[in-house]
Amino acid sequence: MEKEMPTIFSAKRTSFVRTSVIREILKLTVENSDMLSFAGGLPNPDLLPKDILSSIMESVVRDHSNTALQYGDSSGYEALRMQIAEKLTDVSWVSLNSISITHGSQQGLDILGKMFMDSDTNVLLEDPVYLGALQAFSPYQPKFFSVPMETDGPNLYLLEEILTQNKIHIFYANPSYQNPSTYTWSLEKRKQIASLLDEKEVILFEDEAYRYLDFEGKLYPSVSSFRERRDLTFVLGSFSKILSPGFRLGWTVVPKVYRSLFTAVKQGNDLNSNQFSQVVVSKLLEFMDWNGHLRSIQTFYAEKKEILVSLLKEYIPEAKFSRPEGGMFLWVEYPKVSQKELMEGCLASGVAMVPGSEFSPANRSSSNFRMNFSFLGNDEMEEGVKRIAKVYRDINT
Amino acid sequence: MEKEMPTIFSAKRTSFVRTSVIREILKLTVENSDMLSFAGGLPNPDLLPKDILSSIMESVVRDHSNTALQYGDSSGYEALRMQIAEKLTDVSWVSLNSISITHGSQQGLDILGKMFMDSDTNVLLEDPVYLGALQAFSPYQPKFFSVPMETDGPNLYLLEEILTQNKIHIFYANPSYQNPSTYTWSLEKRKQIASLLDEKEVILFEDEAYRYLDFEGKLYPSVSSFRERRDLTFVLGSFSKILSPGFRLGWTVVPKVYRSLFTAVKQGNDLNSNQFSQVVVSKLLEFMDWNGHLRSIQTFYAEKKEILVSLLKEYIPEAKFSRPEGGMFLWVEYPKVSQKELMEGCLASGVAMVPGSEFSPANRSSSNFRMNFSFLGNDEMEEGVKRIAKVYRDINT
Repeated sequence: MEKEMPTIFSAKRTSFVRTSVIREILKLTVENSDMLSFAGGLPNPDLLPKDILSSIMESVVRDHSNTALQYGDSSGYEALRMQIAEKLTDVSWVSLNSISITHGSQQGLDILGKMFMDSDTNVLLEDPVYLGALQAFSPYQPKFFSVPMETDGPNLYLLEEILTQNKIHIFYANPSYQNPSTYTWSLEKRKQIASLLDEKEVILFEDEAYRYLDFEGKLYPSVSSFRERRDLTFVLGSFSKILSPGFRLGWTVVPKVYRSLFTAVKQGNDLNSNQFSQVVVSKLLEFMDWNGHLRSIQTFYAEKKEILVSLLKEYIPEAKFSRPEGGMFLWVEYPKVSQKELMEGCLASGVAMVPGSEFSPANRSSSNFRMNFSFLGNDEMEEGVKRIAKVYRDINT
Repeated sequence: MEKEMPTIFSAKRTSFVRTSVIREILKLTVENSDMLSFAGGLPNPDLLPKDILSSIMESVVRDHSNTALQYGDSSGYEALRMQIAEKLTDVSWVSLNSISITHGSQQGLDILGKMFMDSDTNVLLEDPVYLGALQAFSPYQPKFFSVPMETDGPNLYLLEEILTQNKIHIFYANPSYQNPSTYTWSLEKRKQIASLLDEKEVILFEDEAYRYLDFEGKLYPSVSSFRERRDLTFVLGSFSKILSPGFRLGWTVVPKVYRSLFTAVKQGNDLNSNQFSQVVVSKLLEFMDWNGHLRSIQTFYAEKKEILVSLLKEYIPEAKFSRPEGGMFLWVEYPKVSQKELMEGCLASGVAMVPGSEFSPANRSSSNFRMNFSFLGNDEMEEGVKRIAKVYRDINT
């Protein structure tokens, strides 16, 4: 969707600010309670154990208010940074000091954009790409390149060609259960690309927001863990998908040479992350059954995925998609219809999906839609797929 | 303090990123538990009623988790925006839609910097100025101008001269109990400056983070409330000083023409503010005795201020300061010593204050120090002032 900003006094960079059609669709679904939405990326809030959460809240207010209700360190609450370093990263050189807590991993993307991107910075993206990254980076006006994705990661031949023909400074990638495609880089491609990025001296922003959402509990090693140039690799993580987006916390693993700059930029952005949330999340990590919790999330999403797969096979057998290994989306191709027509028909029939063109770095047209399966109830999913099927048949006959 | 960043690959704007000596001093005070610190701007967390907070937390987890533990609207949680519009602004044209919730008012400053500031944008600051604003704006590389402050607001003669001789696009001001000087614009100056800004078509960023900290419960009308050009005035507010910095919430009152842009920039920055905190703060505003709470904060700070005033009169009668009407600082001049020498002597003696030069837009030297009185206990304040007195005498004899 093209941005529609009023022509008013503002900085030049604002003409590069992108709006998100996803957020517009979310608004529509809030305004129209009959709308069935496959559009969002909303985790299910019921997966968090409420009893533990309540007792932790009580103890934080009672015993930790001097920390939790105060300003804090710009790089984050130390106990939480330590837990992330120990439990939630696989980069061998990681330490307490490498972890910077951010206001969601989205803020990590903004800080990295601010730190690295000028109009002469060449930034390579996956195609399709996570829309939030485009929103974070675009105001800094870098030059974007993109590499087409295959189901097991970037096309290696094209990747090497791009890196050889251009001085690419930064590669932003989402190797595990990518949003929107859910494509996941194979172990082999992770190693090969790590080595290629070392050779070409490319900075990697590795976005691991979906890392723990494998349906079978598998855990891929990060691309960064294979890199020798540890000064050129950042890993972004998030609590939004594994605990709750309500705490609005993520983190970035920052190489040593960039730490003071990252913290100074974070200070200018917002002084420090939410202290109350940081203390609560730290206590949750300490007291809840973490592995059991992850397993229950993974099982829940695996079951929901199977339900959407079955519904699509039953009602719209023409729909094409590869079965994801994890995440919360299907990336579905609806053949022989115009994306715009299908999109408009669906919205008119009270069902929402996100058109694939939204995720194209080059505004390329696409016949794919991103469909979320984590939010709707099973009956609602069935009704939603039926509505899409009807619109699809009406257009296609 | 000059920034000391490694010379590494990064965007050009990073050479304009400023670090904060305050945060460095805060680190020293954390590392050395004997250090008595007048340096921070830390509110007292004990002023928040814990029993109400606990029961609200419990009800939010039990009854509102679908909202509080989820992603939210980029402009903020609607109930809270409504409460801010009704209770916490005095601009007549304000509505639910004018309020955007931010991650502390500091994020509002960053968003406004991103929206408005290019290298050819002329930004007028108060001298001294809130350091966080310098940190937020500097990476966008605007051209800074500054106007000297008097105890009742900017020097009007100089202000008019600056606005006449230069095309000033933006004026950033902190008219109530300014950080660091605690100077407060008089009613008369508020009106005159509002009219002058209208005439010269200057955009005002009015930072009202300290608005409710008047020692006698007085409430000055905002400068913005006197402006006719409501399309050229932004008001920033914060819950950090009146509830708790731990919830990390502030807001910006945004004129209609800039709302879609503000929200789009906010989206790119962090998608949305912390939902859990927003729901909790909204419930606090609904259920606590708000006016009684404000009055108890104001009384507490008034008493602490009197104690520091008495201590300085007793132990360092040479120290000069004007008695503030509100806020959490004294702005103290120590005559006949070099600021650097006094600062270093104090740190070596285990007592910290912030040197006034930190707040100078032009790195002008200053003989003032900012002294916070809200954080230390009364005995600690006395011991701290005694230590400063000894260092001062040692230098001065």
